[in-house]
Amino acid sequence: MSPAASKASITDVKHPLDPLSCEEIRIASGAVRLARKVPLFFRNVYNLEPPKVELLPFLDAERAGFPNPDSARPPRRARAQYDVIETDGNRYYMESTIDIATGEEVTTRLLQKHQRPSFTLDEFQEFIDSTLASPVFQGFVKDTELPPGWEVAIDPWPYGGSDFGPDYTTRLTQLFCFARDMTIGNDDANYYSYPLPFCVVMDATTKRVLRIERLATGGYKDAESDVTVSHIEDGHTLTKKPTKHQGPAEYVPEMLDTPERTDLKPLDVVQPQGASFTVTDNGLVEWQKWRFRISFTPRECAVLHDIHYDNRSVVHRLSFSELTVPYCDPRPPHHRKQAFDFGDAGAGRTANNLSLGCDCLGAIKYLDATLVSADGEPCVSKNVICIHEQDDGILWKHTNLITERAVVVRDRKLIIQFILTLGNYEYIFAYHLDLAGGIYLEARPTGIMSPVAIDAGKTSPYGTVVGPGVLAQNHQHIFAVRIDAAVDGHANTVTVEESLPMPMEPTRNPYGNGYRVESTTIKNSTYVDAAPMRNRIIKISNPSKKNPVSGRPVAYKFSPPATQLLLADPASDIARRAKYAQHHVWVTRHADYEYWAGGEFTNMSREEEGGCFDAAARQDSVENGDVVVWAVFGFTHSPRVEDWPVMPAERFTLHLRPVDFFNSNPALDVPSKKNMASVLVDECCSASAAAGPVQ
Amino acid sequence: MSPAASKASITDVKHPLDPLSCEEIRIASGAVRLARKVPLFFRNVYNLEPPKVELLPFLDAERAGFPNPDSARPPRRARAQYDVIETDGNRYYMESTIDIATGEEVTTRLLQKHQRPSFTLDEFQEFIDSTLASPVFQGFVKDTELPPGWEVAIDPWPYGGSDFGPDYTTRLTQLFCFARDMTIGNDDANYYSYPLPFCVVMDATTKRVLRIERLATGGYKDAESDVTVSHIEDGHTLTKKPTKHQGPAEYVPEMLDTPERTDLKPLDVVQPQGASFTVTDNGLVEWQKWRFRISFTPRECAVLHDIHYDNRSVVHRLSFSELTVPYCDPRPPHHRKQAFDFGDAGAGRTANNLSLGCDCLGAIKYLDATLVSADGEPCVSKNVICIHEQDDGILWKHTNLITERAVVVRDRKLIIQFILTLGNYEYIFAYHLDLAGGIYLEARPTGIMSPVAIDAGKTSPYGTVVGPGVLAQNHQHIFAVRIDAAVDGHANTVTVEESLPMPMEPTRNPYGNGYRVESTTIKNSTYVDAAPMRNRIIKISNPSKKNPVSGRPVAYKFSPPATQLLLADPASDIARRAKYAQHHVWVTRHADYEYWAGGEFTNMSREEEGGCFDAAARQDSVENGDVVVWAVFGFTHSPRVEDWPVMPAERFTLHLRPVDFFNSNPALDVPSKKNMASVLVDECCSASAAAGPVQ
Repeated sequence: MSPAASKASITDVKHPLDPLSCEEIRIASGAVRLARKVPLFFRNVYNLEPPKVELLPFLDAERAGFPNPDSARPPRRARAQYDVIETDGNRYYMESTIDIATGEEVTTRLLQKHQRPSFTLDEFQEFIDSTLASPVFQGFVKDTELPPGWEVAIDPWPYGGSDFGPDYTTRLTQLFCFARDMTIGNDDANYYSYPLPFCVVMDATTKRVLRIERLATGGYKDAESDVTVSHIEDGHTLTKKPTKHQGPAEYVPEMLDTPERTDLKPLDVVQPQGASFTVTDNGLVEWQKWRFRISFTPRECAVLHDIHYDNRSVVHRLSFSELTVPYCDPRPPHHRKQAFDFGDAGAGRTANNLSLGCDCLGAIKYLDATLVSADGEPCVSKNVICIHEQDDGILWKHTNLITERAVVVRDRKLIIQFILTLGNYEYIFAYHLDLAGGIYLEARPTGIMSPVAIDAGKTSPYGTVVGPGVLAQNHQHIFAVRIDAAVDGHANTVTVEESLPMPMEPTRNPYGNGYRVESTTIKNSTYVDAAPMRNRIIKISNPSKKNPVSGRPVAYKFSPPATQLLLADPASDIARRAKYAQHHVWVTRHADYEYWAGGEFTNMSREEEGGCFDAAARQDSVENGDVVVWAVFGFTHSPRVEDWPVMPAERFTLHLRPVDFFNSNPALDVPSKKNMASVLVDECCSASAAAGPVQ
Repeated sequence: MSPAASKASITDVKHPLDPLSCEEIRIASGAVRLARKVPLFFRNVYNLEPPKVELLPFLDAERAGFPNPDSARPPRRARAQYDVIETDGNRYYMESTIDIATGEEVTTRLLQKHQRPSFTLDEFQEFIDSTLASPVFQGFVKDTELPPGWEVAIDPWPYGGSDFGPDYTTRLTQLFCFARDMTIGNDDANYYSYPLPFCVVMDATTKRVLRIERLATGGYKDAESDVTVSHIEDGHTLTKKPTKHQGPAEYVPEMLDTPERTDLKPLDVVQPQGASFTVTDNGLVEWQKWRFRISFTPRECAVLHDIHYDNRSVVHRLSFSELTVPYCDPRPPHHRKQAFDFGDAGAGRTANNLSLGCDCLGAIKYLDATLVSADGEPCVSKNVICIHEQDDGILWKHTNLITERAVVVRDRKLIIQFILTLGNYEYIFAYHLDLAGGIYLEARPTGIMSPVAIDAGKTSPYGTVVGPGVLAQNHQHIFAVRIDAAVDGHANTVTVEESLPMPMEPTRNPYGNGYRVESTTIKNSTYVDAAPMRNRIIKISNPSKKNPVSGRPVAYKFSPPATQLLLADPASDIARRAKYAQHHVWVTRHADYEYWAGGEFTNMSREEEGGCFDAAARQDSVENGDVVVWAVFGFTHSPRVEDWPVMPAERFTLHLRPVDFFNSNPALDVPSKKNMASVLVDECCSASAAAGPVQ
């Protein structure tokens, strides 16, 4: 299909936040192909959200029911990201913006040498195939003496760390290798229990193996050694038969040593009248006074837009922005194990195709996404986002002690969830909305830790031996969420509120029980750290709207999760690349397309560029303005044996909640009906004879 | 029934941790009545758990199937707490221990003058009745000029704060008053929206009104005043018609201004094969490799004993120990608003009688409790503890990117829950056990905040105006849980583990990515504070048992929740009475019956006595010993308008989890079956046309 086939009829029914349709993707990639006239390798083609100045009038008009239908509709535009392949095989990287209605390329950008695009899954597969086909690699593997019939499995990784020097402009990838026992007749045998002590460095453009590096496999014979006296070069002793002292660590049910439990009886969530939410108009979700739009982007996966509660604005755009995972084993080349999972790979592009009955219970709505293949053709990824409701226990209860009447109301959450697989690790991301005006952003790491080989009988201060010959290195996961706030309007102010002791003193605090709440307004873009011992709260308020009951500005607030920040030395590559990960909260002034906590280009970045740090450094005025609040939280993961071979999900949550936004508990009107499906456990299991009848 | 009626046959089938039966309660109270020969007022009669030295051999024998049935059975004993009423009406307070088999009182204790027993619900009712009957009070109320047909509702409170002087030995109570609109024909109208500006101080023994105190109703006309310049005496202006500027704030459904929502469709939890747990032998719970015993005490409500996972010991005794709620309005007499909800009232005695279909979903097992009335007769309180299962989302997931096979396992929790009503406030307490060896202790405050009157149009730095004329004062809730640890045996060691930066340095950390994990062993009883920025972890290990995989001692750990500690001035009554609330973790050596974080006698206490502080101050050796770990976490509650009139539950959780306790993820054997009851949301709500078919 040529761009000329585009019609106004395709686009004028589209919402400006709709993901591109297949036809629109073809219009966009066609336009770029036409303009470049050379072979291209497409990485992304996605809907370019209109600038805020165009989007807000449209959203206002939409909520008003389009009294003047045509006036406010922004042009529909696509963004294409692609490689231009030169005749010598070299590539340069470009971005184009395409007007969908006209089929015209309207802007282009050539990436600078140090700006490297993220990887695609197709590309990862090419790295694997090229490595396996490399004679150098084959020779190396042969020397390694794996057991007969075993193969090598390969995990491509971004090349984190800038030891390639300032002028080195090649795109690199590093590939970690594992032995795969193909003799046992199950392709799902877990190869991560056989980490091999070498790693491949490849030119990501030419797919040439540049070198194979041996990894240290030394460690301590005594787990109780002083961890501070270790030398980083503690031996490359595993040259031959590296799997000899290793063993299986299976998780697929048919391969388990112990049979599956048989005594966990079914627990079903049944919604006899169906779900309480609706999804209409390609992503408009309505549920319990909440109204918002879901879009999909290749980098963020599900994004929530224009979140309103009871027709009042709360957040303009809500997204997971970045996740960096630095590994803390100081022995080179492990210092290069730092992934930016959103910037280097993309949450949308690595999102699981979810399955009914596996990832959630009850009445489920799935949304598909449309990605693009290297040739610019759309490809649909099914079920990448799921939407469902969950009971969440008691929302509020009170018993009147005079009448003995109890009123109990249960909480319900609407959950918008997606799950990424990034090689070994899985991440479950979800937005939760509740019945009391609360919004939660949840991140749950699970999956398999990235392991390395260790000599038999040794332990290490840099990680935990989780299986024979397997070291799970200490690492961190540092998440960033982006809150483009719109608390009852777009002009918001951020204040930092703390609860602080008051000294005992005869007139003001004679018995010493008082405390004071102190509030500081953030005037210019900056960062703030968590301070739970001061009960530090971040409040996003609308200074022009006062709550009629309390007299205070209407607001939403959150307690920054008090999690450890980045541990890497501030001068390290890791720290310079992830400045966002060094503070808990960033408050910046909105700028269109400034979505990325760690910067737009993280792949082989030397320094965070255009991320939270730079946005804050502008010292923009943020008081009573269009403010973006970024919240950073993390997980210092010094592994447990229990995290192997697949790790129980850990849960990290940011909770945004109204404070003086409503005039009373907004969930007073939630029905306090008795649930008629609840039953008593059979008398056969009875134990309440403890008390016995009163005789 | 006389003690002589006791028979060996009653007691020899009882488990030493069984709550007393009705018959046993009668034996105990009968023995005490016989011994004292004067009128008594019973407060508690409950099973006295055997000292550990007697209990442990019994539990060992029990788990071994009683190879020698009689040898290890401790005598069954009751503890009775009661007032001895002298002929002049004065009382002194005593405790007795009664051997149930013989029906003999075996020990007695006379409480010291400063040791005041907790209140009973019957007593609270007497305070209310006596106040309403008091001519002084009636005259005062008459002067107050309530609207015609209105009544006064009264909340009895412990008299917190020691402004009664060191020698004042009377037991006091303070009573807060509210106006109750009886003209509208609904007894469940919320009287907390009409706080009256006075409070009654009563002699709790004679039930005489000692004085009526006017409460300050002043405040600030400007919410943005500097909070530090307030004077505590800011006016008692509301003498007449105090409810004139107040109004209703209802929560019972038939009285709401807005009708109940009709669009929240039913969500049922259905367990077609019933629950997966069993409760046998009066409280022995078995579920998914967990095995433990639940008992009930009047002060703690549900207690978990002898918690084992897969036949390995984890915790000997697990309980919620105390909760203090200090109010932070420095205007006297509000400094006396400090409740110790376990020590002043009792979680068991204030526990709700739960209802099927209201407080939990699915297949529910309820346990009753047997309390005692003032005359020593047993009284059964139905359904005070509920046990049920809950789905908890994805426990672990991994997708093999080579085969594209995903294995997903869902988490399930066993929940043991009880709910207290303490006048205005509700607390939901629960123990959760999961499928991966985790134990959670959860506290969820809900219910109605304790409000005071404020003049029309004023605001206050000491709280939030949540309704007309209603100030919800700033306050804190500080919880303590007690973990009598038994990690794979009874000799345990507590270590404090931190993840700390390593400086970049050429030999040990050349790229600056390393961090180190530092561990400090606690040798003598002490306290530890949370330090989330150091990723501080409390690890309870068994130093004699090494994990065969990692080589480290088997352990359980928790991150102390980084919540604000007590804000009151260290020299204040509040702080001296709640020393436990000033640190996050206390590590002490086990002593029989040392259960109370804030001390045994909190009612009108001047200073915490026999609580965490004193136990830690003994400087007992705790290394490789019988250790008790206390975790303290809290909630600084500066109210939101949204917390009124009934507050959405806030959630606070302590998560105990295995670390190198198992040799792999203990939940590998949880079935990864597809849930067949999950369904797709109707196509009518479809939105997945976003992507559209690939054409």
